[in-house]
Amino acid sequence: MLTRIDHVGIACHDLAATTAFYRDTFGFEVAHEEVNEEQGVREVMLRVNGTDDGEASYLQLLEPTRDDSPVAKFLARNGEGVHHIAFGTSDVAGTAGAIGGHGVRVLDAQPRAGSMGSRIAFLHPKDCGGVLTEIVQASDRR
Amino acid sequence: MLTRIDHVGIACHDLAATTAFYRDTFGFEVAHEEVNEEQGVREVMLRVNGTDDGEASYLQLLEPTRDDSPVAKFLARNGEGVHHIAFGTSDVAGTAGAIGGHGVRVLDAQPRAGSMGSRIAFLHPKDCGGVLTEIVQASDRR
Repeated sequence: MLTRIDHVGIACHDLAATTAFYRDTFGFEVAHEEVNEEQGVREVMLRVNGTDDGEASYLQLLEPTRDDSPVAKFLARNGEGVHHIAFGTSDVAGTAGAIGGHGVRVLDAQPRAGSMGSRIAFLHPKDCGGVLTEIVQASDRR
Repeated sequence: MLTRIDHVGIACHDLAATTAFYRDTFGFEVAHEEVNEEQGVREVMLRVNGTDDGEASYLQLLEPTRDDSPVAKFLARNGEGVHHIAFGTSDVAGTAGAIGGHGVRVLDAQPRAGSMGSRIAFLHPKDCGGVLTEIVQASDRR
């Protein structure tokens, strides 16, 4: 059902500086950059490793593009740090339904657009041991 | 240098309940359980996926065994949630030295004992964008 750690999302104030840190100090390569206007974030995906389901694990660096975005509010409350964990699946809608059947609130009734053409749904952190959790179906073209 | 997301460490109050949640709701298998008296934690490793460096990615669930352990203090301050991210390397001492050369404070001058016979070193979260970061060299027997 969930076959990999797809990414760990990290909130930061300065995307360029944080990207440079992870690239220069840890050696991770930038795989992708985009702006997600719906979520109010500018983001960089750093590829860490391939996974045995044929996909990969990334770090996702997130900088808010506006003060009322969820990531801006997270930064104001918590400062920089881990924002969420995302697990990969081949069927985001089916997996969201199965997880919802266990009593976990699925925040996106219809999967929405994530990084690199993926389709995603968030789960309520209070139902997941305090962890904001995302499930991700990668794009076929990824 | 760092070739995988080795694990994401999650602090919890009730290890049995949190393990059951991840197993039953997300389908992750328990790979290992142990108590690390030095760190004051009881822990469960849940295997999520294999990685293309020949190792694997895990979730590490952490319950404190005493009130003065770092994880107990984290829970008192932040509540349940993500505690740290760990990246895998084939040479923890060499990688710690290289990362320290970039100005990141390495909290363990000598690598110490981690999960499943691994050797680990922690990096200062203030030097890693607010993320408590661990580097891990897996045991040959893992």
